[in-house]
Amino acid sequence: MEIICLQENFKKGINVVGNIIGKNLTLPILNNVLLTVEKKRLRLISTDLEMAITYWTPGKVKKEGEITMPAKLLSDFINNLPNKKIEIKTKDNSLHIKCENFKSVVKGIDSKEFPIIPKVRGGSILKIEALKLKQAFSQVVNFTSLSDIRPEISGVLIDFNSEGIKFVATDSFRLGEKTLSIKNETKTSVIIPLRTVQELIRILSEQGRDELVEILIEQNQILFKTPDIQLISRLIEGTYPNYEQLISKQFETNLILDRDEFLNTVKITSLFSSKINDLRLKVIPKKSLVEIFAQDTEIGENTSELKGEIKGKEVEIIFNHKYLLDGLNNIDSNKVILGLNGETNPGILKPVGDPGFVYVIMPIKL
Amino acid sequence: MEIICLQENFKKGINVVGNIIGKNLTLPILNNVLLTVEKKRLRLISTDLEMAITYWTPGKVKKEGEITMPAKLLSDFINNLPNKKIEIKTKDNSLHIKCENFKSVVKGIDSKEFPIIPKVRGGSILKIEALKLKQAFSQVVNFTSLSDIRPEISGVLIDFNSEGIKFVATDSFRLGEKTLSIKNETKTSVIIPLRTVQELIRILSEQGRDELVEILIEQNQILFKTPDIQLISRLIEGTYPNYEQLISKQFETNLILDRDEFLNTVKITSLFSSKINDLRLKVIPKKSLVEIFAQDTEIGENTSELKGEIKGKEVEIIFNHKYLLDGLNNIDSNKVILGLNGETNPGILKPVGDPGFVYVIMPIKL
Repeated sequence: MEIICLQENFKKGINVVGNIIGKNLTLPILNNVLLTVEKKRLRLISTDLEMAITYWTPGKVKKEGEITMPAKLLSDFINNLPNKKIEIKTKDNSLHIKCENFKSVVKGIDSKEFPIIPKVRGGSILKIEALKLKQAFSQVVNFTSLSDIRPEISGVLIDFNSEGIKFVATDSFRLGEKTLSIKNETKTSVIIPLRTVQELIRILSEQGRDELVEILIEQNQILFKTPDIQLISRLIEGTYPNYEQLISKQFETNLILDRDEFLNTVKITSLFSSKINDLRLKVIPKKSLVEIFAQDTEIGENTSELKGEIKGKEVEIIFNHKYLLDGLNNIDSNKVILGLNGETNPGILKPVGDPGFVYVIMPIKL
Repeated sequence: MEIICLQENFKKGINVVGNIIGKNLTLPILNNVLLTVEKKRLRLISTDLEMAITYWTPGKVKKEGEITMPAKLLSDFINNLPNKKIEIKTKDNSLHIKCENFKSVVKGIDSKEFPIIPKVRGGSILKIEALKLKQAFSQVVNFTSLSDIRPEISGVLIDFNSEGIKFVATDSFRLGEKTLSIKNETKTSVIIPLRTVQELIRILSEQGRDELVEILIEQNQILFKTPDIQLISRLIEGTYPNYEQLISKQFETNLILDRDEFLNTVKITSLFSSKINDLRLKVIPKKSLVEIFAQDTEIGENTSELKGEIKGKEVEIIFNHKYLLDGLNNIDSNKVILGLNGETNPGILKPVGDPGFVYVIMPIKL
């Protein structure tokens, strides 16, 4: 193969595909990226066997062909070259690279050893703007379970239904649900592995905000597609927990609090939490006040008071401060709603003015 | 004790002194900061037994006294409080803290258990601007040896002499020397531990650039002093190596190179270096050219060409690319001088236009 392309294009490509390649000691070929010169383009492919990323970049093709190259070295090298033309050419199993005053010979591995990348031939489900998709994933991705015991919650659920698309993640202690109200005619739901979601967020962050991402699903595979990039991933098998009954619409106690003030008070008070991260909220509607309290026998204790619009019953409830903070950190409105139904039922945290996001948090029962 | 002070002052103090406090499991008192209310001020002291840092902040004193507090918790707590008045008051061995809506009780340890902080009563050697002192230390600090085998080079030498002050650091593979030409009447030299230098750089970065730092030395102690801060440290005993004969003034081959271009070429080519980090420089004066070459049997090879003003003999020399980069990264002039005396003698790297800094680098002899 032989092609001339611009450093900035090659750099973008290697940065898009190179991130999922780690140091795989048992299968060294997985540390490599597959370069293919075909028609008028250079194609780069990487895979970790769970997902595969493909990127196409234009170039002046002199000879078609393919080779695999160590991704880490290629990325470090290409990223640091000046933004000029790069000439690349294979000779035996090496790649000869020329750029301005630099001349290199990099050893590769035959492309025949590279794993076969699956294809999704199913029809398109929908197209969605890159920024919207990224934001929806970002708002829930941190709530997935990291344990392998329940694989069905180790990813993000995407539920396509007549209202639009829901993105859901939980680790059984708290749950986040983001709804995008967009036109959608498919009714299906899939669970996407955490690593795939993280990679998608990374790649989407570098796309134009209005760039359309097409989603295709076939059996146990999902494909995300833009004109230059394709990410294909396996799906997680299993049934996602039936979480909807957790999201109450009616509350015995209803609070509207300033988001920053609430967040900061939780952060400060939690310094005094004991090892189980407990934070006690005492809601006193007639004083329009929440007392937030934490105590540890070795450290000491702290009480803070927070004013707000509070209606309904007086209640005392204990939350894990980390889960409260995670919820608040994923809400960017000025005011938040906290809905409670007694000390043993889950609390609901929602931004004021954005009906698309709901956060459910289980109380600690002492 | 009882005092009222502003959150921003307390915060500054705890951040200045708190950094050297780690998790000391054998001597828990070293995880604490000593708070003393005396006259019209609150004094904070921390120590790791090698150095001690003192900070004074003003306040409205109600009752003198002292207590020690866990530094990490105090720092996290004070840093997050709103910028308002903080009331602190001891009761038994606890500190009661009030700030706006926050009320805390933090458990401390009796101040009697805190180590005695040494005093330096020797006369002042000189006063120097904070920024100048910080820059001088910063330019050499990374070249100290991290090994304990030769303690005398595990710190930075400060050599006070009639020309001014020299700051020197080496790990025996390379050496940096920074000279400040300031009026100075003392003739002495001391070796300051690396950790002390790092801490000084951190603290000086937050001082006003023109703030004067006074230096006092007594036996095996050194004191750095501003109106609000004192840092006292033990000195390293031993004789610093007689390095001056390494710094040649005459060169068989003399190169003037563009600093950024040189740095970038070394960085790119070094990706192909073998495990001993070797980079071969072939200097060809009649072509005004340096060829930079690296090769590894597993990775491949790279040759780059660099143009420059080159005089003297043709020479081939091998350097460790990390040491070349370290030197170049500590030079911020546009052009650098590289002076060579054959393939076995040390090379000298200097900024063009700043006579104060010299970097010596030993070649690799294959």
